[in-house]
Amino acid sequence: MRNFVLEGNLCYSITPKELKTLRGYVVCKNGICAGTFEEIPEEYQSFEVYDYSDMLIIPGMVDLHIHAPQYAFRGMGMDYELIEWLNTQTFPEEAKYADAEYAKKAYAIFAENMRKSATTRACIFGTIHREATEILMDLMEESGLVSYVGKVNMDRLAPESLLEQSADMSAFSTFGWINDIRGRYQYTRPILTPRFIPSCTDELMEQLREVQRTYQLPVQSHLSENQGEIEWVKQLRPDAAFYGDGYDKYDLFGDRNLDQEKVRTVMAHCVWSTDDEVRRIKDNGVFIAHCPASNMNLSSGIAPIRKYLDLDMKVGLGSDVAGGQTESIFRAITDAIQVSKMYWRHVDEKAKPVTFEEAFYMATKGGGEFFGKVGSFEDGYEFDALVLDDSALKSPNDLNIRQRIERAIYLSLDLNGIVAKYAAGRKIC
Amino acid sequence: MRNFVLEGNLCYSITPKELKTLRGYVVCKNGICAGTFEEIPEEYQSFEVYDYSDMLIIPGMVDLHIHAPQYAFRGMGMDYELIEWLNTQTFPEEAKYADAEYAKKAYAIFAENMRKSATTRACIFGTIHREATEILMDLMEESGLVSYVGKVNMDRLAPESLLEQSADMSAFSTFGWINDIRGRYQYTRPILTPRFIPSCTDELMEQLREVQRTYQLPVQSHLSENQGEIEWVKQLRPDAAFYGDGYDKYDLFGDRNLDQEKVRTVMAHCVWSTDDEVRRIKDNGVFIAHCPASNMNLSSGIAPIRKYLDLDMKVGLGSDVAGGQTESIFRAITDAIQVSKMYWRHVDEKAKPVTFEEAFYMATKGGGEFFGKVGSFEDGYEFDALVLDDSALKSPNDLNIRQRIERAIYLSLDLNGIVAKYAAGRKIC
Repeated sequence: MRNFVLEGNLCYSITPKELKTLRGYVVCKNGICAGTFEEIPEEYQSFEVYDYSDMLIIPGMVDLHIHAPQYAFRGMGMDYELIEWLNTQTFPEEAKYADAEYAKKAYAIFAENMRKSATTRACIFGTIHREATEILMDLMEESGLVSYVGKVNMDRLAPESLLEQSADMSAFSTFGWINDIRGRYQYTRPILTPRFIPSCTDELMEQLREVQRTYQLPVQSHLSENQGEIEWVKQLRPDAAFYGDGYDKYDLFGDRNLDQEKVRTVMAHCVWSTDDEVRRIKDNGVFIAHCPASNMNLSSGIAPIRKYLDLDMKVGLGSDVAGGQTESIFRAITDAIQVSKMYWRHVDEKAKPVTFEEAFYMATKGGGEFFGKVGSFEDGYEFDALVLDDSALKSPNDLNIRQRIERAIYLSLDLNGIVAKYAAGRKIC
Repeated sequence: MRNFVLEGNLCYSITPKELKTLRGYVVCKNGICAGTFEEIPEEYQSFEVYDYSDMLIIPGMVDLHIHAPQYAFRGMGMDYELIEWLNTQTFPEEAKYADAEYAKKAYAIFAENMRKSATTRACIFGTIHREATEILMDLMEESGLVSYVGKVNMDRLAPESLLEQSADMSAFSTFGWINDIRGRYQYTRPILTPRFIPSCTDELMEQLREVQRTYQLPVQSHLSENQGEIEWVKQLRPDAAFYGDGYDKYDLFGDRNLDQEKVRTVMAHCVWSTDDEVRRIKDNGVFIAHCPASNMNLSSGIAPIRKYLDLDMKVGLGSDVAGGQTESIFRAITDAIQVSKMYWRHVDEKAKPVTFEEAFYMATKGGGEFFGKVGSFEDGYEFDALVLDDSALKSPNDLNIRQRIERAIYLSLDLNGIVAKYAAGRKIC
């Protein structure tokens, strides 16, 4: 069980600069990748071989930032900036998840489409609603993806219908949620999710520190997305040296000793992070979820990803639905490259564009690290794989694997070319 | 014949600010749109009605700039800038079209995919090769699209294999081509296509002026795409007041008296046009083909489309395959919006983002004007329509037509949701 071999045209990242391609076999042993081979080694000869003939096989995509409740209005109402968009699009929709029946209907669509997508791993925001979040987790478990799902915490500065009544109530609800789901899932894990600094009082942050310490939960939130938001944070939290320090003061921002298991943290955006903030992100081993589509759609700006890559920081990609219009991480790969080119041309001529190799790395091994050894076909990685049939993309020329992978991603082959998907050693689609 | 009615959810542009939506009927009479109606008027009651029930019906997309020979390497080799990309990707591929057999194979893929795309009208670059260009025109005629196709003129500064031997030979070949195809097609028209100023000697431009005068051909070319290119043009043509003046000196740049039929011209890009050039573009009624994906991929920069729209200039969209990775004009719509937001945020805070309404207008009625009365369902417009089935895009909410159209375009429904396509009153897909 969970021992098998896939045969086809393989492509995966070794480093941000090196994309390995070969025609051959990738071996899954007990759900873990045992490496890639041109011929099946003796020891795996008894494993069943799935022959995907001339198809492409790559690691599953990792989405470090997506909002499940916003999936209902993806691709709509895109002519707004962040704060206006929150108030007119996002908050009214999220309020609906107080109704479990609505949550079931909406999250079923989300989970089914995530199953069919190129994504095998995701960090997911729910809403403040405990019941709805548990429904979401049930559905994500069924989907087969491996995911972190967060019940959101918010106790200020949102419509009444989306506020938890107090910091205590928010923490209480979070404890209840964590206890409820304990032992319920194999592939779906809780993650602490303060929405962002403006939504959380100091008292709530204090409580969340306790929740985090008690359960050793990882943390996800938003950071330095929009200039107006940053000004707002300055006013709300004059004690914080910079936006991210507002999390770090409550030990919700990675760990200085880089003890990953202590407070594994992913922050979405980091478009406008100051030098001090960048240093802290790096020093604390915080993951950055780069969400280029969202940053374009909400006119937030372009994150300086070249800088983060050169500093050897932990960067993955996020779809940020519904700031981003689609759950496609293929799209996030090309968006990341494209915005980096605009950044180079219009903002900083020293910041060389992100290469295809680098963007592919971020989408797989870079973001995958948040989940452990995930995102590559190297020996010892959890076995996540995507099989793509690109035969509908015709060419008059013979193409090599590298060319075909680049084309498949630029042409959104995830919309109609996914033949099979494996997550943590199981075929889920 | 060519009298029929389509029933469904209609959406089309009236102005750049107004997108009209209604549940009802759009009437085609003798290939021309007779308007939209909530009930079928008495006089059209005898027309056959095609009931597309709950589907979406919009005008066909107009692509003002696409390179057919580059389709073979779409979505590949994207980590280059313009001049490097021309030398390593484009020119080697284009040279292959000297071989008619190769052209047949490659252009058949292009034409078939254009038929299946959302595009009903296109301005297409071929190569310098007369025979290959005629093959392309034969295939475009079969595809059902209405298109302008250009045999490219180049007599300097490219690899030997892609240069015509002299200005005379280039003009001679162009005359031959035009005479060859005279009367051969109903929906496929020739367009004069000097590649760009760097590729054409003064002698060639002089000759092309004569060709244009003789046949009253429209003109397509490139303008102010890349800063390095503009510097190059300055050196090559010190007599020109600005890049566009290099065309205008030879009467290949629209017409001062706005006599559209005289020299109808479309110029791709206009990313870095100076104020003088912008004024000339406007004064001469030159169309701008805005190609946002290409401008990102080749790191050219972001064209100031807000300015062009505010000046009431003629702007449409172009896919610019293979600078752009896809022939999808749906993608060009969202790209146009997204890059305008980055321009607003990072380049000019006075240049408000392009709205969805404006981008949809550019993709249909804006670019459509190059073909006459094209790109709307208003009375008197040539009948181009696209029927989209968005039922696979599930939502827990009831959506209005405007929301569904925005979603369909943001989520690339043209890749798997096109149910029917009509061009110039004929069902072609």
